[in-house]
Amino acid sequence: MARPKEFEPDEALERAMHQFWATGYHDTSIRDLVARTGVNYYGLYGEFENKRGLFLASLDLYAKTVTAAVIRELKRPAPLAEGLQTTYERLLELVKTPGGRVGCMVCNTAVELAPSDAEAAAKVQANMKQLRDAFRSRLADAQKTGELDRSRDIGALSEFLATTAYSAGFLLRAGCSDSYVRRHIRTAISAVR
Amino acid sequence: MARPKEFEPDEALERAMHQFWATGYHDTSIRDLVARTGVNYYGLYGEFENKRGLFLASLDLYAKTVTAAVIRELKRPAPLAEGLQTTYERLLELVKTPGGRVGCMVCNTAVELAPSDAEAAAKVQANMKQLRDAFRSRLADAQKTGELDRSRDIGALSEFLATTAYSAGFLLRAGCSDSYVRRHIRTAISAVR
Repeated sequence: MARPKEFEPDEALERAMHQFWATGYHDTSIRDLVARTGVNYYGLYGEFENKRGLFLASLDLYAKTVTAAVIRELKRPAPLAEGLQTTYERLLELVKTPGGRVGCMVCNTAVELAPSDAEAAAKVQANMKQLRDAFRSRLADAQKTGELDRSRDIGALSEFLATTAYSAGFLLRAGCSDSYVRRHIRTAISAVR
Repeated sequence: MARPKEFEPDEALERAMHQFWATGYHDTSIRDLVARTGVNYYGLYGEFENKRGLFLASLDLYAKTVTAAVIRELKRPAPLAEGLQTTYERLLELVKTPGGRVGCMVCNTAVELAPSDAEAAAKVQANMKQLRDAFRSRLADAQKTGELDRSRDIGALSEFLATTAYSAGFLLRAGCSDSYVRRHIRTAISAVR
C-alpha cells in the first residue's frame, strides 16, 4: 500500500499559482515556493517534478479557475455593453489583490517565458483562444438579437476584446490606478458598437 | 591622466539594451551580457555598477531611441487615422527583429520588474507619460483642425492609444502573427473617430 501523501497537492498547487502569479517564473525561488505552500522540496518535486512542472501546472489551474470565472461572467444574460463591462469588472476583482498589483498570469507568462519556452507559449495561446472564443460567441449572440450590426467583423472584435483583458493586467502590473484601467476598458468597449 | 577606456560605453550599452530587451532582466546573466557586449565583467561594472545599473541605463536608452523614434513618426504631418497607422507601423518595425519577437522593453519591464523595483516602475510610468503626451498633443491638433470632434475626451483617448502600443508588444511577445497585431491596431484606431 502506497504511503499516504503528507500534503494536499491541490491546495499546494493553488498556493504555488499565487506565488508565481505575483512574482513570475524566474524571480520565484524554490525557497519561496516551499514557504508559500508549506510543502518541502521533496514533496513538491515528487508531485510536480521541478519548478517548471509546478509553474506549468499553475498556469493550467489559472485557466481553469480565473479565466473560467471571467468567462462565466461573460455568459450571464445582459445587454452587450453592460455584459462586457461587468466581465472586465470581474476580471479586475480577480487579478488585483487588496494590497498589490498582481496583474494577469497569462500576460506575465507571455512576456517572461513565451519567447523561450514553447510549452508555456502554447498555454498562453490556448488561454487567448479560450477567452477570444467566449467573446466571439457573445458577439455572435449580439448579432443574432440585433444588438450588434451584422456587418461588424466579430473575429477581429473578439481578438480585440481578449487583448483588452490582457492589457488591463499589464496596466495594473505597471502600477496604473484602477480608474486608469477602467477608462481604458470603457474606451475599448466603445469600439464595439 | 586617467587611463583611456578600453571599450566604448555607448556601444556596450546599446548591445546590453538589446540583450535585456530580448531576454528580460532576471533571465539575463552576466555571462550573456559579457558575450553580447564583448566587454568583460570589470569593464561593465566599472561603468554601470551592477546588472541593475546596466538594466536601468538600458531602459533610458530605449526611451531615448525607440520611443523617441515612434514619437517622431507621430509628429509627421498626416491625416489623423493615417498618422496613427504609420506610427504603429513604425513601432512594429522597431520592436520586431527579423527572426524573433522581442516585443516592447517597457511592457516587458512593467510585467517583470515594476511591482518589485520602484526605480524601474518609475521609468515605466515616465515612458507611458512620454508616449501618452505625444498622442494627446496629436489629438489636440486634430481637434483644432476639426479632424476629431471636440467632444471627445483626448485624455482618455491618449491613454488608450499609448496602451495599444504596449499591447502590440505583448501580442508579439505572446507569439501572435503580424496580421493579428495589425488587426488589433486597426480596431483600436477605429475607437478614435
